[in-house]
Amino acid sequence: MNVQEALAGYKETLEAYLDALPMKGAPDSLREAMRYSLLNGGKRLRGCLLLSSCEMLGGDEADALPFAAALEMIHAYSLIHDDLPAMDNDTLRRGKPTNHVVFGEAVAILAGDALLTHAVEIMAASGHLHVLEALREIIGAAGVGGMLAGQTLDVTLEGMAPDIGLVQKIHQGKTAALLTAPVTAGLLLAGAEESQVEAGRQYGYHLGMAFQIVDDLLDLEGDPQLMGKTLGKDREEGKLTWPACVGVEQARRDAEKHIQEAVTALAPFGEKAAFLRELAESTLHRAQ
Amino acid sequence: MNVQEALAGYKETLEAYLDALPMKGAPDSLREAMRYSLLNGGKRLRGCLLLSSCEMLGGDEADALPFAAALEMIHAYSLIHDDLPAMDNDTLRRGKPTNHVVFGEAVAILAGDALLTHAVEIMAASGHLHVLEALREIIGAAGVGGMLAGQTLDVTLEGMAPDIGLVQKIHQGKTAALLTAPVTAGLLLAGAEESQVEAGRQYGYHLGMAFQIVDDLLDLEGDPQLMGKTLGKDREEGKLTWPACVGVEQARRDAEKHIQEAVTALAPFGEKAAFLRELAESTLHRAQ
Repeated sequence: MNVQEALAGYKETLEAYLDALPMKGAPDSLREAMRYSLLNGGKRLRGCLLLSSCEMLGGDEADALPFAAALEMIHAYSLIHDDLPAMDNDTLRRGKPTNHVVFGEAVAILAGDALLTHAVEIMAASGHLHVLEALREIIGAAGVGGMLAGQTLDVTLEGMAPDIGLVQKIHQGKTAALLTAPVTAGLLLAGAEESQVEAGRQYGYHLGMAFQIVDDLLDLEGDPQLMGKTLGKDREEGKLTWPACVGVEQARRDAEKHIQEAVTALAPFGEKAAFLRELAESTLHRAQ
Repeated sequence: MNVQEALAGYKETLEAYLDALPMKGAPDSLREAMRYSLLNGGKRLRGCLLLSSCEMLGGDEADALPFAAALEMIHAYSLIHDDLPAMDNDTLRRGKPTNHVVFGEAVAILAGDALLTHAVEIMAASGHLHVLEALREIIGAAGVGGMLAGQTLDVTLEGMAPDIGLVQKIHQGKTAALLTAPVTAGLLLAGAEESQVEAGRQYGYHLGMAFQIVDDLLDLEGDPQLMGKTLGKDREEGKLTWPACVGVEQARRDAEKHIQEAVTALAPFGEKAAFLRELAESTLHRAQ
């Protein structure tokens, strides 16, 4: 199994689906702003996690695609709103001007709202047997107990003294929730049993924590060219990060530990989990 | 049937439900901002329309409540985002400072996002037989072919020469879509047939158009004390309104005509539609 090749395959299928979304009824300016952020060459990690988790248990890719697309739309909406002047005030994302720089703040706010709403429309329109279970996993992860809790703490606690408990909460909400939901939703769509969903939840949590700790480290030590955004902003703005609490070396060890636990959680799936295992391991060495 | 008394009854039930929403996992600052805009004494027209439409066909109020609450949450989110400095830049709403004035722009944006997301969570968690049909009506009305289309045109076409076709499109999206969905969703929850849902759709469209034309007129001639917001802003900002296109007198006649058509659409429901009929008629004489 070559994880990069498999990822590229999932990504291609997903990109084609996203590019073909009709967004029926959207005024041109709204559609253009939505597509600008949705089709900007991201890694598609969330969508690929969903497709691969569903495939791992023999689920149908066509059934899983609307949910994978919805996750990418929710991710894109969160980045648009996160980049706004009133939030992180970022002007560069993946090497391109952020949404509000191109379309103005008003349309950027609406494009974010629209991507979230359209994500729900697409999931609800899927005729899949397990649509409600999968939708609830995804929207719960994006909600007040998940991503929005993390975002709120991230925004309101800037400048506070480093506190590992709070950072854990922020990282879980901001990042781990939306890396867990694709796994659990993908498994549910394939008709998984409760114990399998629980194993997927553990995997997603540890993958997400490792992913965000590595993100914190890349903000300190990454290559701005590869990352496609301004680095060093976390420290400048007094963001609560993992390395700010425990130091760079310990942060690296903690990320490794989370990846070990993610891999351990995959045990019930045996050899079928090769992709998810290698994906987790590759997270430690990512440069973007 | 006293429409005001009936409205007050629905409103009380709905307010109690909204007040008791657990918003599980929300950080205090987010919950406070969400509740500030959600529990601010609005008319609850959308929620009441849903409860009464469901009741009209013998549906269960307890089943309908999550969907009525979701509509009020979606309405509250749209007002928070609409009031932002980058959008309409309003500082007063129902006689109180707007959300971003109290909580800051960042938390206001997140509170809007959270109300929309939580609305979906609440609907999806309802175990109702027709949950997906009702959810799709509501989220479709809030989406890129409904409310968000209207908002985008409203924001991007400011200052354009009055054009009745465009105003019709804006009013349909911004207002009529979210006054239609409570009717159609309420009927669907009660197990309505397709022809009944279609009659409800006609009623909601005409009610919504009349409601927004009256809103345009109140912005010109209303009592700012009763309205609880700054008036005269539409003209000042070059908003596309109905009276700006056809004059005040014709606008009043058009609103009356829409109400007549709304009432006509109720014919298939006979006497059971007394509340919806009287509600429509009272729209013409509202002062807030």
